[in-house]
Amino acid sequence: MPIQPVLINGSWRDSKSPIGNFQSINPETGIAQGKRYPISSFADIELALAASHWAVKELESISPENIAKFLELYASNIEDRAGILSQTAAIETALPEKSRFRDIELPRTTGQLRQAARAAKERSWCRATIDTKANIRSKFSPLGGPVVIFGPNNFPFAFNSISGGDFAAAIASGNPVIAKANPGHPGTTRIFAEAALKTLKKCGLPQTMVQLIYHLQPEDGFRLVSHPLTGATAFTGSRKSGVALKHAAESAGKLIYIEMSGLNPVFIFPQALKERGKEIAEELGQSCTLGAGQFCTNPGLVVLLKNQDTENFIKILAEKLRSTPAGPLLSRQVLESLVAAVTSLKKFGAEIVSGGKELDTNAFSFANTLLRVTGDNFLKKSKKLQTETFGPSSLIVVAENIKQMITIAAHLEGNLTGSIYSHTAKKEESLYTDIEAVLRTKVGRLINDKMPTGVAVSPAMSHGGPFPATGHPGFTSVGIPAAMLRFSALHCYDNVRKYRLPAELKDKNPTGKMWRLIDGTWTQKDI
Amino acid sequence: MPIQPVLINGSWRDSKSPIGNFQSINPETGIAQGKRYPISSFADIELALAASHWAVKELESISPENIAKFLELYASNIEDRAGILSQTAAIETALPEKSRFRDIELPRTTGQLRQAARAAKERSWCRATIDTKANIRSKFSPLGGPVVIFGPNNFPFAFNSISGGDFAAAIASGNPVIAKANPGHPGTTRIFAEAALKTLKKCGLPQTMVQLIYHLQPEDGFRLVSHPLTGATAFTGSRKSGVALKHAAESAGKLIYIEMSGLNPVFIFPQALKERGKEIAEELGQSCTLGAGQFCTNPGLVVLLKNQDTENFIKILAEKLRSTPAGPLLSRQVLESLVAAVTSLKKFGAEIVSGGKELDTNAFSFANTLLRVTGDNFLKKSKKLQTETFGPSSLIVVAENIKQMITIAAHLEGNLTGSIYSHTAKKEESLYTDIEAVLRTKVGRLINDKMPTGVAVSPAMSHGGPFPATGHPGFTSVGIPAAMLRFSALHCYDNVRKYRLPAELKDKNPTGKMWRLIDGTWTQKDI
Repeated sequence: MPIQPVLINGSWRDSKSPIGNFQSINPETGIAQGKRYPISSFADIELALAASHWAVKELESISPENIAKFLELYASNIEDRAGILSQTAAIETALPEKSRFRDIELPRTTGQLRQAARAAKERSWCRATIDTKANIRSKFSPLGGPVVIFGPNNFPFAFNSISGGDFAAAIASGNPVIAKANPGHPGTTRIFAEAALKTLKKCGLPQTMVQLIYHLQPEDGFRLVSHPLTGATAFTGSRKSGVALKHAAESAGKLIYIEMSGLNPVFIFPQALKERGKEIAEELGQSCTLGAGQFCTNPGLVVLLKNQDTENFIKILAEKLRSTPAGPLLSRQVLESLVAAVTSLKKFGAEIVSGGKELDTNAFSFANTLLRVTGDNFLKKSKKLQTETFGPSSLIVVAENIKQMITIAAHLEGNLTGSIYSHTAKKEESLYTDIEAVLRTKVGRLINDKMPTGVAVSPAMSHGGPFPATGHPGFTSVGIPAAMLRFSALHCYDNVRKYRLPAELKDKNPTGKMWRLIDGTWTQKDI
Repeated sequence: MPIQPVLINGSWRDSKSPIGNFQSINPETGIAQGKRYPISSFADIELALAASHWAVKELESISPENIAKFLELYASNIEDRAGILSQTAAIETALPEKSRFRDIELPRTTGQLRQAARAAKERSWCRATIDTKANIRSKFSPLGGPVVIFGPNNFPFAFNSISGGDFAAAIASGNPVIAKANPGHPGTTRIFAEAALKTLKKCGLPQTMVQLIYHLQPEDGFRLVSHPLTGATAFTGSRKSGVALKHAAESAGKLIYIEMSGLNPVFIFPQALKERGKEIAEELGQSCTLGAGQFCTNPGLVVLLKNQDTENFIKILAEKLRSTPAGPLLSRQVLESLVAAVTSLKKFGAEIVSGGKELDTNAFSFANTLLRVTGDNFLKKSKKLQTETFGPSSLIVVAENIKQMITIAAHLEGNLTGSIYSHTAKKEESLYTDIEAVLRTKVGRLINDKMPTGVAVSPAMSHGGPFPATGHPGFTSVGIPAAMLRFSALHCYDNVRKYRLPAELKDKNPTGKMWRLIDGTWTQKDI
């Protein structure tokens, strides 16, 4: 079977001296399927880096309007391929074609691209700041090197390295992209890349602006993220890979943004449980099993107070998990990591409430799982018991008392989210204040009365958080325009002659709609 | 002689099991002077970290107005001590008491503190972003751990770990500070710390908010920046120390901002030279010797075109450098590094035009130095010839032709600044465009017709730049409010009940003057 080409320097070409090749694995059968894709050697990377270096140069004279046009047209071209994309993604991931890909992930993806297009066009994202008296002006600008994007396995559209949020943000802020496909869905990624290349041609943009390789040896990944020509890297995936890439990039002084998920603790207060325990159990059960539990924001840790309401709650939740069909997991690695994580949790004192083992099917399947541990035991081994169980598994911590609940919060690692359910009337404000004070600094997004799985694409969103959730708590990977700032440098112009300034910093507002901070006032006016 | 106490947990106390002690060295005589200060062991650090952890908690309920009051009163208290501070700093650094400390650095320092106070009070710095439809709100908030500040040797006031820009930014954004004094000016730092503690008491703020240690072994520094309780680190100083601290902090997933100076290339175009060569030589000579050349923004590399005007320019500049008295350097280490750097430049092909050696005095003194190298030779060893010469030494690169001038720009490392001098009429725009395209991505601040040494404290300033100038090109260490964002985390509130929101995110604008991005519009209005 021929090996599929990579997209480098504006054309589909054979991978140069590939190290090997791979096929995607059908998660429902465990059998290799579809076409063969190359595992690139560093030869491909060198070509891609050299090509993107030229893209950087060409992009300097390309207008934000043209980039916006690309993003918009690309979104339409994706919609034109909605059928084949959803079909391919469903085959490669075993996630539902219609209810997941066509109806949810595709509109989210094109919506992100269109938001990015609007942001590029309006230009407010670059936060132009002008000091007229000192004649100093600054704004955020492209990095001067490509953004390398490693996409995760769990969102083949919305976080895909060549169509997802990182891609939209990197392109909209004026950078070329080198996409590293997730080997779980190479066919899906290929279709996106074809649409992207076609769109670039149509818009007259540098065809080197978007490049794609499928797979790499870890060492070559390290060389890529630390290469002098690389601008920045965005990685979404496992903690192990993320930390290794972070180390490589940062040792070379290179920027890297890693999003490594976590446990997304959910605190359910006693009065909330008394008031609407059944409803919350229902909601939690659904959140736990969404996408077979393979969400970065999956609620992996639930903290409750020891009492009869909690016992009832656990019963209802376990029942809900038992009655929800266990979807196939994305890959053998996901299954193996989950088995290892659950084994480790048990070793350190957690008990199985329901599920807890691999299912006897051909698919990569693990029963929807609920574990529990006492607050005392959790505190004894709090680090070990915060092992992530990526997949449909959550750990309930039953706190001995309110004080212990707060102590548990204090022992949490950095997370993307933290949720608090409390009584709908102001019955638990004192407890809320105590828990919030501890939880707030440990999460990017604090949530009330809602599960963490939904991540709205809003300018106010933070899909980020303290290490080990991400590498820097000041950035978000979801939400335009904030996500764009990750891929930009603060460029200051000191005493630069006015006619030489970039349009965004000239006296006249270039779009009439761009927000600029002029002498301390945010305004859309000219100077 | 008794060892001076450290400021930990709100009081002056003896250092716990110090590793040793030190005195500052008089740069004019090389003789140890003044009081003895401890080299802290990790015991002091542990106490300071524990104390600042409590400061973090207490700060949660302290209003920005109160923090602003502290910063303002502290500025006044510094002014009250202007005499003794300037005197002490002059003794410790051999920089001029009046023309440097009293008249320039002190007003700059108090100005920064007052700007930070205004920013804290107004609250716009936290960039509150509100999506009313989705009910998602976010803002930048304190990190939840102290900011550790390592101050440099060259600005005992304006970049002092307990009074400078990093300090002002960290405090104004609501974080406690653990200051690590620069061992070059412990007495100066001590006076600041006394004023800070007195001010904290007066304002009723947690006295653990500002702590001071004087000196550390490198390994203990690494432990400090990577400690779980540490929020972030700000370091200004040498590349060697900066990179080592960066490595330690980042390996532990901790934030660190390093500012390591560089060469600040100055391009002088042929027509500018023809037009006003003498004037520029005058300006450059002054900039090169400012503070005995010990500025982060010292012009260490000057690129000119090979011709007779350049030869004349070099003559005038050399004359200017010879006629300017060589001020004592800050320390023996500065002198030794400079000797080593100049030796290395010579080894790799640079020739001495003037100066080039240590002066035969008791002071740490090095002659004002000018070196030159051909463009061809520079390009052969461009990395080696970009060795920083911290002190009064600059390297002139004489480019063979215009094309080579552009190639030289392309070979530059990341720098804080890049200056371009061109003809005052539009005679050299094509060359400007070519050089700017290359230089722009390599520097934080692009300057026209001006030397880099002046760093205005403006909201539009960027005192930052790509590695190795700093660790992240998206941040600046000078300029309020931008510098404050380094010490904050993006906190998102998703569906959080309105009465529980922080004041900055409630419907009502808390100050009436705070700028917030509400549904895409920057406004000072309520919702």
